[in-house]
Amino acid sequence: MNIEKYPSRLLENAVNEFAKLPGIGRKSALRLVLHLLRQDNDEVIAFGNSLIQLKNEIKHCKKCHNISDTEICSICSNNSRHGSIICVVENIRDVMSIENTLQFNGLYHVLGGIISPMDGIGPSDLEIDSLVERIEKEEIVEVILALSTTMEGDTTNFYIFRKLKEKDIKVSTLARGVSIGDELEYTDEITLGRSLVNRVAYENTLGK
Amino acid sequence: MNIEKYPSRLLENAVNEFAKLPGIGRKSALRLVLHLLRQDNDEVIAFGNSLIQLKNEIKHCKKCHNISDTEICSICSNNSRHGSIICVVENIRDVMSIENTLQFNGLYHVLGGIISPMDGIGPSDLEIDSLVERIEKEEIVEVILALSTTMEGDTTNFYIFRKLKEKDIKVSTLARGVSIGDELEYTDEITLGRSLVNRVAYENTLGK
Repeated sequence: MNIEKYPSRLLENAVNEFAKLPGIGRKSALRLVLHLLRQDNDEVIAFGNSLIQLKNEIKHCKKCHNISDTEICSICSNNSRHGSIICVVENIRDVMSIENTLQFNGLYHVLGGIISPMDGIGPSDLEIDSLVERIEKEEIVEVILALSTTMEGDTTNFYIFRKLKEKDIKVSTLARGVSIGDELEYTDEITLGRSLVNRVAYENTLGK
Repeated sequence: MNIEKYPSRLLENAVNEFAKLPGIGRKSALRLVLHLLRQDNDEVIAFGNSLIQLKNEIKHCKKCHNISDTEICSICSNNSRHGSIICVVENIRDVMSIENTLQFNGLYHVLGGIISPMDGIGPSDLEIDSLVERIEKEEIVEVILALSTTMEGDTTNFYIFRKLKEKDIKVSTLARGVSIGDELEYTDEITLGRSLVNRVAYENTLGK
């Protein structure tokens, strides 16, 4: 299937656009475009407009750099949240994941990525300086580092930790251990080892 | 993950639109939208516009019902193709598949689906009447039925065959047999059985 002849230039354009998305090949792209062609005019136009509007109008919160419809996002502007605890995350998906747990009532700081020399992402590409600035300006008591438990995540954690060492704040990180529902037999040895070293008093796990 | 709080209404709209597409769940939709957000403005606006344009401007060829930018598609208006042979297919993807083989030089007729009572698709929902009309008007010698080898495909084949029985034309269907590169051991018995019944003279397979 080297030669792909589309019967229409308009169709080809739309397929090309879909095929640029991650994880969507040309065959899937064609399937999606043909699906859209079968939908009502209004539906497809709404789709197209939602993308144009998204790009034209969306903002990033000036405080936490999360995606927002307003200058300051709904989390940062919510007075019932604790402004003294900042949870540092990689991207907005992580904000959503943590929000879904309903276990955190502080504010966030979205880095926009993690330090990854392989991908050419250094500390200056991330919102680390603005994090330090926030800590200097606002009354922050604790910073929770909630990054991926990968090599890159660990590097970023350590970089931020060093930056914050002299400030008078608590820096914590997410507990690592055996996932709930996991069988020990299938847990990798590093996770299992850490969860042994960092074992918690049994009574602390009750009633949670 | 029951409660999904998006930090932005614009983001949520775009995710909703993507999640309507077949095979794309809400998590993938979010991933795609965040990918688009990282792209240049122009890129995303081109994407949105390609969809709007597609729906507003695309036409169906008046002759073969394939998707086209013009009233009569590029295949139907190509004088170097044999106008006396019509290949009947389900949809435009099948046209593209057959075109890619470079083995067919006639015209097409796109039914727009196959007879499927389970999905509520009857003969009147398809371009069968217009096929019969074409055969009456144009000088057609042969109709090749190139539909899926499913129950629905067979039903549609038979329905069209009965409609064309009285006309003085040849009605043929695609050869069915063992796929090239397949091992006999793994070929299903119906295909293998048919390929035995419809065996061809060995010399006919040489030089192809």
